[in-house]
Amino acid sequence: MHTPGSSTSGYALLLIVQVVFIIVFGFCTDYAKELLPVKNETLRTVTSEPAESNLRKYPHFQDIHVMIFAGFAFLMTFLKRYGFSASGLNLLVASLVVQWAIIMRGCYEMEDGIIPISLQNLIGADIAAATVLISMGALLGRTTPIQLLIMGIVEIAIFAGNEYLQIELVKAADVGGSITVHAFGAYFGLAVSFMLRPKKDQAKAGPLEGSSYNSDISAMIGTIFLWIFWPSFNSALVDGADQERAIINTYLSLAGATVTTFVLSALVSHEHKLDMVHVQNSTLAGGVAVGSICNLLIHPFGALIVGVIAGVISVLGYRYLTPAILSNLRIADTCGVHNLHGMPAVLSAIFSAIYATFASADTYGTSLATIFPAMQNPNANHHSSETEPLEYVIGGYGRSGAKQGAFQLMAIGLTMAIAIVGGLLTGLILKSPSVRQLEEHELHKDDAFWETPSEDSKNTADTNDSIHQ
Amino acid sequence: MHTPGSSTSGYALLLIVQVVFIIVFGFCTDYAKELLPVKNETLRTVTSEPAESNLRKYPHFQDIHVMIFAGFAFLMTFLKRYGFSASGLNLLVASLVVQWAIIMRGCYEMEDGIIPISLQNLIGADIAAATVLISMGALLGRTTPIQLLIMGIVEIAIFAGNEYLQIELVKAADVGGSITVHAFGAYFGLAVSFMLRPKKDQAKAGPLEGSSYNSDISAMIGTIFLWIFWPSFNSALVDGADQERAIINTYLSLAGATVTTFVLSALVSHEHKLDMVHVQNSTLAGGVAVGSICNLLIHPFGALIVGVIAGVISVLGYRYLTPAILSNLRIADTCGVHNLHGMPAVLSAIFSAIYATFASADTYGTSLATIFPAMQNPNANHHSSETEPLEYVIGGYGRSGAKQGAFQLMAIGLTMAIAIVGGLLTGLILKSPSVRQLEEHELHKDDAFWETPSEDSKNTADTNDSIHQ
Amino acid sequence: MHTPGSSTSGYALLLIVQVVFIIVFGFCTDYAKELLPVKNETLRTVTSEPAESNLRKYPHFQDIHVMIFAGFAFLMTFLKRYGFSASGLNLLVASLVVQWAIIMRGCYEMEDGIIPISLQNLIGADIAAATVLISMGALLGRTTPIQLLIMGIVEIAIFAGNEYLQIELVKAADVGGSITVHAFGAYFGLAVSFMLRPKKDQAKAGPLEGSSYNSDISAMIGTIFLWIFWPSFNSALVDGADQERAIINTYLSLAGATVTTFVLSALVSHEHKLDMVHVQNSTLAGGVAVGSICNLLIHPFGALIVGVIAGVISVLGYRYLTPAILSNLRIADTCGVHNLHGMPAVLSAIFSAIYATFASADTYGTSLATIFPAMQNPNANHHSSETEPLEYVIGGYGRSGAKQGAFQLMAIGLTMAIAIVGGLLTGLILKSPSVRQLEEHELHKDDAFWETPSEDSKNTADTNDSIHQ
Repeated sequence: MHTPGSSTSGYALLLIVQVVFIIVFGFCTDYAKELLPVKNETLRTVTSEPAESNLRKYPHFQDIHVMIFAGFAFLMTFLKRYGFSASGLNLLVASLVVQWAIIMRGCYEMEDGIIPISLQNLIGADIAAATVLISMGALLGRTTPIQLLIMGIVEIAIFAGNEYLQIELVKAADVGGSITVHAFGAYFGLAVSFMLRPKKDQAKAGPLEGSSYNSDISAMIGTIFLWIFWPSFNSALVDGADQERAIINTYLSLAGATVTTFVLSALVSHEHKLDMVHVQNSTLAGGVAVGSICNLLIHPFGALIVGVIAGVISVLGYRYLTPAILSNLRIADTCGVHNLHGMPAVLSAIFSAIYATFASADTYGTSLATIFPAMQNPNANHHSSETEPLEYVIGGYGRSGAKQGAFQLMAIGLTMAIAIVGGLLTGLILKSPSVRQLEEHELHKDDAFWETPSEDSKNTADTNDSIHQ
Repeated sequence: MHTPGSSTSGYALLLIVQVVFIIVFGFCTDYAKELLPVKNETLRTVTSEPAESNLRKYPHFQDIHVMIFAGFAFLMTFLKRYGFSASGLNLLVASLVVQWAIIMRGCYEMEDGIIPISLQNLIGADIAAATVLISMGALLGRTTPIQLLIMGIVEIAIFAGNEYLQIELVKAADVGGSITVHAFGAYFGLAVSFMLRPKKDQAKAGPLEGSSYNSDISAMIGTIFLWIFWPSFNSALVDGADQERAIINTYLSLAGATVTTFVLSALVSHEHKLDMVHVQNSTLAGGVAVGSICNLLIHPFGALIVGVIAGVISVLGYRYLTPAILSNLRIADTCGVHNLHGMPAVLSAIFSAIYATFASADTYGTSLATIFPAMQNPNANHHSSETEPLEYVIGGYGRSGAKQGAFQLMAIGLTMAIAIVGGLLTGLILKSPSVRQLEEHELHKDDAFWETPSEDSKNTADTNDSIHQ
Repeated sequence: MHTPGSSTSGYALLLIVQVVFIIVFGFCTDYAKELLPVKNETLRTVTSEPAESNLRKYPHFQDIHVMIFAGFAFLMTFLKRYGFSASGLNLLVASLVVQWAIIMRGCYEMEDGIIPISLQNLIGADIAAATVLISMGALLGRTTPIQLLIMGIVEIAIFAGNEYLQIELVKAADVGGSITVHAFGAYFGLAVSFMLRPKKDQAKAGPLEGSSYNSDISAMIGTIFLWIFWPSFNSALVDGADQERAIINTYLSLAGATVTTFVLSALVSHEHKLDMVHVQNSTLAGGVAVGSICNLLIHPFGALIVGVIAGVISVLGYRYLTPAILSNLRIADTCGVHNLHGMPAVLSAIFSAIYATFASADTYGTSLATIFPAMQNPNANHHSSETEPLEYVIGGYGRSGAKQGAFQLMAIGLTMAIAIVGGLLTGLILKSPSVRQLEEHELHKDDAFWETPSEDSKNTADTNDSIHQ
């Protein structure tokens, strides 16, 4: 009980980080131009349009906001004695990294040394935060709060660079972030987990690494809100018909993954009973697996097939792969992010390569230029009034379908490599002697860092007491 | 503890159903035309408008999505030891039936043998799923998962036919689905419950058919989210001023029902204490009771009155009617859907008949044609540029108010008859010897079908233990 | 156990109030003109536009609706044995006072003796309900349901008058309601609490005035949904670029307050452990503190600074001030609304005065007239086609920045004075012998007014039992 909390130096450091962020915000950011007041009244109608147009994304933003701050938070409360940390640290980590993500992502879109901030940046920051929370899922219960925050800071910096690389330079299609968010977050977290792996004889589930009846129910709050709003996550960055297709495909993929998860969970589990771990996680794999292709013409049956495959892979991963990785490589993965985010994301990238291979202007018409920007013919550019002047792209414009497919595979490959190397380095930092590590008896336990309700309540009319006395 | 789960054959069957759905989606569905890419650039502006217009419904859709997947799920977690099933099976059943509902409802709007899928179909599918979840509420804890899924498949097929009959052929006004969703779902479920009724000497509440302190709180998550988003449910299918009236009326009706529920709960309950069952359910009756009339000119005070009456009926139903039905007819109704959905829906239909009787072009102006389509004069049709060419309607166009009122009553009567007959037949299927039934000791208990947290956790630092040791 | 519930006379009175409300709605309200059907078809396009425009606020409304009915409800479930009351009475009180708020607020916008009701009124009513729920937070567990309802009725009447005074007559800028909602609600509640203060020797936390592990988790549901949707609360009443700035500033302020809360909680708490009370409440103080200035040009770094200061004040308040106030003044503040709403709101008002002082047409351009309406030059009014004809304003138009700043301070000062006097008078009513008071053993305990799950469940397979037997 009397384990000291994190040393105050850790929290003092956090305060310094917050102050530094404020200074950076002060010198390097401002509202985007369309959000500044109009000095000259005649300009009003012209400039108010962009603001209105930004705000059309607001419901989508709020859905994603629910996923990041409620969905991930409650999904991670499944451990019987780690609910304060799951819900609380999710809030802390996300609050810190969204600020940092606005800065880091903004580096690639500065105008005159100033990052213009609009609702779009908040959406991007929330999505970036998802990456860190996925990595946190792999490590849940095995780090101090300060270790998590250090990881978040490093991870966002690398994430922002990789996102820019894959989306702007490689021009990979990844509208739902399966490559840049889910794969990156999962493999980064697993690499950190590898670095923090226990000594040989301790690589097994601890006594508190399980759920209680109530914690399983509260985890379902997270699952269900993630499930509900996943179509918004996948469709937030596209518009019009592309957006509506992304919504429909994600909806169907989730439905297919959910049915498959229940079937497979019963088939592979002990006594053919359903396993809450699968229901809480694998049902969501359909959202990840359809992420990179949800705006493509995969057609409703294609979306269902993707979901079904994702459900199969995810449940089998939980049942067989995660225990094997733990016992063989000693990589712990508390939430099983490899099964929910890692493998389904790779699947999504592979599908995106296949669909890209068969994509052409015949099937996609004028949408080709928005879905696969590097497939447009640079000479035909003057036709399209909506695209910006072409920027530098690795491999050049005018890609064939097959070439775009190859670049999709390159995107996932590069992303995994960067995530793993970044995660290993981050793990090295977290393991350094200057950073406080968890003792073994502190694993998966709120009490080390939280004041928990006193056990002295025994003799008062506590809920449990009133039932048991 | 060692009850075998559902036989694997049941889950294998479910997998086959999922595969069949995929095949049907492959051959019979595609994106709606406005979601397909534009081949010819000049058409772009014309065709992108419908997609934008569809997407204006997206926030409404997401609200309904929360109701179906979070609202119903948590409302049903009120049983002390059935939370995994309530939250998990809600997700499974809904995920399966939304797919099936897209197909079945799509049969009535096929174009060239293909169901065109847009956001509109997802909204319709979610609403259809509500019907099955209502029926599930009546049976909660008394069926196997496979029985629920069989019921869902049969129910959706009948639901889709009945919905088409009442809305398109009878042209009943039922914008919030009180007739086609709530009454149908409730009476269908009660009819199934009647067929599955226990033997004479077992018709009483089982030992687990009650709540715990924590399960009552988690049920409130469901209640509150249903309460919050009910205005979206009732107003999703209308536009403009009609939509805003539907929102306002539903809001007020819910407020009135809530106040009344508390008053009556205290007045009729033991020792004049409030009863959580009433608070969790009867507060929502206002949303059901205003469903068929929420877009009419019932005026704010009318909406409040409807809510108050619904609250009265619902609480009295829970207090006196449900126990009477259980002991006399041996029809169990675990969630009391008769009091939350059944009777308030009938009330709504009766009100809709009364309001229709007094409706005229004088009061409703040009809205009459959208609210009561069969009341428009077919000869005057060429005036209205917004209505489609008139389709066949039972009883013909140019109905008087009184005639429309009669058709409203016909709609509820027909719906109840179809639901009850359909439910009885479905119950017959579920009782057949080839379908696994629940043993008595498995009632209202997750453990038969779920791996539940091990009791061996006793000696570890479990939440409860840490308080009690 | 056998304490009688509230006397039935209290609930009967509540029924009478509901009936009176219906009568008032019948005689004094109707749908706003744009929601009434169009009699003449040629007017259709003209009049449907306002309805569409109203409905653009619907997603914002629903976000606020979640805050009021889910956020406040679950935030207050933190007490170990008061969850039924927190979630249930929140619903009851809010359902009653939204009706009353529509009437009271409508008094100031009547047209020909009729209050025109549109979505705008529902937004206003929800925001007004927040005021009462804040006051309820101060008193949580110390009143009967009927006392709460009496307080709500009185409070809304005073609130509506004060809101009209500050916004329409003083023309204070307070777009997020920090002055009119948060400060008013907090100081009103504290004044009531002062009147209901216990006798000298009882002024200490009772045995049930604490949380359990599960109740702390369910309180986080409230915290997190309030946190997520706070940007909607602060931005609901503005449009375009002003709205987007309000969203961005609130988002950043909340993020800054959250990081600061964790840091400070660890630094000032026992053994440097995190305190759930701080996490549940002080993280939200950033939303309150930025309320009156969120649409101003405070710039992203300004928003972060406001959040950080709010977090500091709030945590220190919980740690040192609330216990001091309890022991010295015997003012109990169960949820610590002084730290979450009271002080951060005063901070917001002070900031608004400072920013107003430096505001000018140079920096704010044409937005000045919408942000600080009384700073516009009445003679220049004919230029602006969007502002209504100028109404009477205390102190007149054409205010300088410094003068507007003074009026901002006057607004918070007046509001606090009115709230405190109103609260004292209300407390006098609640203490009157004709109103049933809580016995000491009923404090913070559901059992006095709710049927709670029977303790006889001990021998059945209850959740806890199955783990412990």
